[in-house]
Amino acid sequence: MREALAEAAFQLFLQRGFEQTTVDDIVARAGVGRRSFFRYFPSKEDAVFPDHERCLANMTAFLEASDGPDSVGVVCDAARLVMRMYAAKPEFSVQRYQLTRQVPGLHTYELSVVRRYERTLAGYLRGRWSATPDGALRAEVLAAAVVAAHNHALRSWLRSGGGGDAGEAVDRALAMVRNMWAGGAPPHQPTTEEESATRGGSGEEVIVMVARKGVPLWRAVQRVESALGEK
Amino acid sequence: MREALAEAAFQLFLQRGFEQTTVDDIVARAGVGRRSFFRYFPSKEDAVFPDHERCLANMTAFLEASDGPDSVGVVCDAARLVMRMYAAKPEFSVQRYQLTRQVPGLHTYELSVVRRYERTLAGYLRGRWSATPDGALRAEVLAAAVVAAHNHALRSWLRSGGGGDAGEAVDRALAMVRNMWAGGAPPHQPTTEEESATRGGSGEEVIVMVARKGVPLWRAVQRVESALGEK
Repeated sequence: MREALAEAAFQLFLQRGFEQTTVDDIVARAGVGRRSFFRYFPSKEDAVFPDHERCLANMTAFLEASDGPDSVGVVCDAARLVMRMYAAKPEFSVQRYQLTRQVPGLHTYELSVVRRYERTLAGYLRGRWSATPDGALRAEVLAAAVVAAHNHALRSWLRSGGGGDAGEAVDRALAMVRNMWAGGAPPHQPTTEEESATRGGSGEEVIVMVARKGVPLWRAVQRVESALGEK
Repeated sequence: MREALAEAAFQLFLQRGFEQTTVDDIVARAGVGRRSFFRYFPSKEDAVFPDHERCLANMTAFLEASDGPDSVGVVCDAARLVMRMYAAKPEFSVQRYQLTRQVPGLHTYELSVVRRYERTLAGYLRGRWSATPDGALRAEVLAAAVVAAHNHALRSWLRSGGGGDAGEAVDRALAMVRNMWAGGAPPHQPTTEEESATRGGSGEEVIVMVARKGVPLWRAVQRVESALGEK
């Protein structure tokens, strides 16, 4: 019933426009009563985005079950849940993207949803970094960066017509955030396994960086990366 | 006239509530006709935030006039324009913050405005980094991080009642974004002056970092910073 209503609503929005379609039109097309609509959707806008509430609930559950040392990785994985929801229905997602760009009310609705995802991710990081100086600030900034990277990749995919691999584009964007994030996440105590991996064997290629103590490390690293051709 | 209308509207919103106040109430209190209101404000929501349009215009003008090599610094300075607008009227800003938290429509309006600031900053960076691989993605991510840091500090200040120095809190938050941003901004060609500053004199304290080439630089830097007690 819920899905049938969302489907009927979306077809009408595409045919007649969002503003021009009433809830009465939608329930007539779906063959149900007016009350049924409001049982499932608080507003017309909600019918355009029928899956976000469930995705937010999934994200919260995913974060609650996550407990590894790599909090930034957990948050990136959580963000991918949103991409997968879009990628599961490429045609619908692309059509909705086009509709959303035309209707200011839908654009605003989407901003609210994005902010809720961002707050969910920030809340997780805040909990993990509660003992870190500026933990709440770092949490907010990293969540915003992850969401921005995710959405940038997702939007590119939607604009391209949903043809390629959304997951790959999002993975690349999130990997870039992690690389940009030198020193952003509080350091964690390395496990023994990581320690030995870091110590490495003999004869491996090494980087030696020398910097004056007054020079910000990020600038020194920029130059090393630039010299290595990583940028 | 515009200011008088915004003032009358705000007093009524505080006294009676936002939803309960009509445009007729506002114009009656300000002693003008109904049309005058809509000449200045497209909606009731706009009257709650009378300064954002001007601030957005100022930000755009500031960015257009900015041309230094430090694009991230320019964007941080541009973000500070918003803080200064809030700090210029502490009591009004604090009362509005409380009102905004109670009225979903105002909260949504604010999200739209925040997104416009973010897009303005991202647009500047995109222009500066157009020749950089992933320049558009980096621009989007950095703009989101700057806005998140700025807003985190601003919200703390508003929640504390607007008593302390908003500028100082925002400066600290933005400085942290810059420190987190190791390698995030594309490297720029250093000027001769910077080069000689970087080379420095003899006898200065230096950092020597050695890392295997397979280890991500951000992780190596985390450990150096951790050892230096900078985190």
